[in-house]
Amino acid sequence: MTHATPQPGLAIVRTVAEVRDRLGAWRAQGLRIALVPTMGFLHEGHLSLVRLGATVAEKVVASLFVNPTQFAPSEDFAAYPRDEARDAALLAGAGCHLLYAPGVEEMYPPGFATSVSVSGVTTPLEGAARPTHFGGVATIVAKLLAQCRPDAAIFGEKDYQQLLVIRRLVRDLDLEVHVLGAPTVRDADGLALSSRNAYLTAAERAIAGHLNLALRRAAEAIASGEAVAAAEARGVEALARAGFGEIDYFECRGADDLRRMGPGPVNGDARILAAARLGRARLIDNWPVERTPR
Amino acid sequence: MTHATPQPGLAIVRTVAEVRDRLGAWRAQGLRIALVPTMGFLHEGHLSLVRLGATVAEKVVASLFVNPTQFAPSEDFAAYPRDEARDAALLAGAGCHLLYAPGVEEMYPPGFATSVSVSGVTTPLEGAARPTHFGGVATIVAKLLAQCRPDAAIFGEKDYQQLLVIRRLVRDLDLEVHVLGAPTVRDADGLALSSRNAYLTAAERAIAGHLNLALRRAAEAIASGEAVAAAEARGVEALARAGFGEIDYFECRGADDLRRMGPGPVNGDARILAAARLGRARLIDNWPVERTPR
Repeated sequence: MTHATPQPGLAIVRTVAEVRDRLGAWRAQGLRIALVPTMGFLHEGHLSLVRLGATVAEKVVASLFVNPTQFAPSEDFAAYPRDEARDAALLAGAGCHLLYAPGVEEMYPPGFATSVSVSGVTTPLEGAARPTHFGGVATIVAKLLAQCRPDAAIFGEKDYQQLLVIRRLVRDLDLEVHVLGAPTVRDADGLALSSRNAYLTAAERAIAGHLNLALRRAAEAIASGEAVAAAEARGVEALARAGFGEIDYFECRGADDLRRMGPGPVNGDARILAAARLGRARLIDNWPVERTPR
Repeated sequence: MTHATPQPGLAIVRTVAEVRDRLGAWRAQGLRIALVPTMGFLHEGHLSLVRLGATVAEKVVASLFVNPTQFAPSEDFAAYPRDEARDAALLAGAGCHLLYAPGVEEMYPPGFATSVSVSGVTTPLEGAARPTHFGGVATIVAKLLAQCRPDAAIFGEKDYQQLLVIRRLVRDLDLEVHVLGAPTVRDADGLALSSRNAYLTAAERAIAGHLNLALRRAAEAIASGEAVAAAEARGVEALARAGFGEIDYFECRGADDLRRMGPGPVNGDARILAAARLGRARLIDNWPVERTPR
């Protein structure tokens, strides 16, 4: 990742009124708009979302908002890495047309009292580990979509459960937006890019790739007919052996609805999802079980 | 209320796709759209909302959906009066341009899992008497607004707390719609028109006007400087004496936020709200405390 000089070309707006003005002018010209919601401290994964947005719309707007309501009090809201100037430069370089970076007061003015929640798909995995997380995500995404009214909104598959939550939300509230999931961008050893990788020490970084490795191995084993329970147990063991701390989950679930798979061979589209601590970082990743005959 | 013959002029659509097509065509012509959400069994109160809509928009669409999620299991969802042909005729006569009457499956397809909730203003009064009610209201209104994307949405002041909930929801989720409250339409004795008045027997109907009378008297007394607690107590007494059954509330509250008023003279804009049973019906009404010097 390069620390580029800020590009003078990228406009930054900070209010709902301003972002509506800018996007309204584009819309009036018949230009389609893609929204890439982010919490900033951008990496190549985010930039790939911007590039995907540019393939489906003439204008790409990225939002940068570290949303306090999706962090629990015990979590890393205050410590979450922030560098807006660097983010703006990276976005400009990736072809983004506008950065929308509202403050907390703009998004949650005094008296704010509304929340959007999704049941079902929010219950297991991240929802179990972080019970208030998806309520915060659903509410802020509903707001961003209402503020920007984009034709498409782009989210990374790295946050796979979040992607399913947002698809459910958009379908259920009849929001007129195409939700696109983008493939996870990884380092050479398979580690999914994440702003939270900044928390890893060099020693932790050296073993972090084992998370993806364990997911791939479990996916291959299950795809070859191994029982889900055995593959999951071996995944957990591999992470512990590699040096990970607490393993929140390592589970094979239905790809569309995160339903629990039986302990035996999988039946239907499946995805393996995992979350584990490594030092100060809590890493998450996921991998599809490809059941194509071989 | 007249039982008119259905007007052939009023188009009825039943799906999200159809209503979007119709409204999209109007929008493309630069026509503004007002939405009047209803649960049907229309009366002059609803029709006044249609007429108000026509003063702010070129096209008025009414929705007719008896929303199951805003009724508790013990309430009157199944018994709620329905007469779509009559409703369509009344709407056509009032100048409505489109009736959107989706079925339950269209609004809540299998797998539906999202809810919108508003805290604070939903807690007292109707929220206390009907704990699940406003969650259902907020969710269905968010859906209707996303489906129709009207320029204005019209709601009656008869459901005063609902109007505040919807204003809060629209502000908090940044929905681009003007919410207009319309004055309550009343019979000669002051009874607010309501579809649920259909539940009243002739004997009950003869005393139903006392609800509005008690509200007006309490509002006048408070406006003249009487202590809130004394005026409320007299209101409750008056309803009991008139023959009402259970009185859920008779309370003077802040007009904007429904905050509890102190027991003494009011300080700030206030409104008195009441709900009471009369036979099978549960009637609600409200009245402003006019503090203009006289």
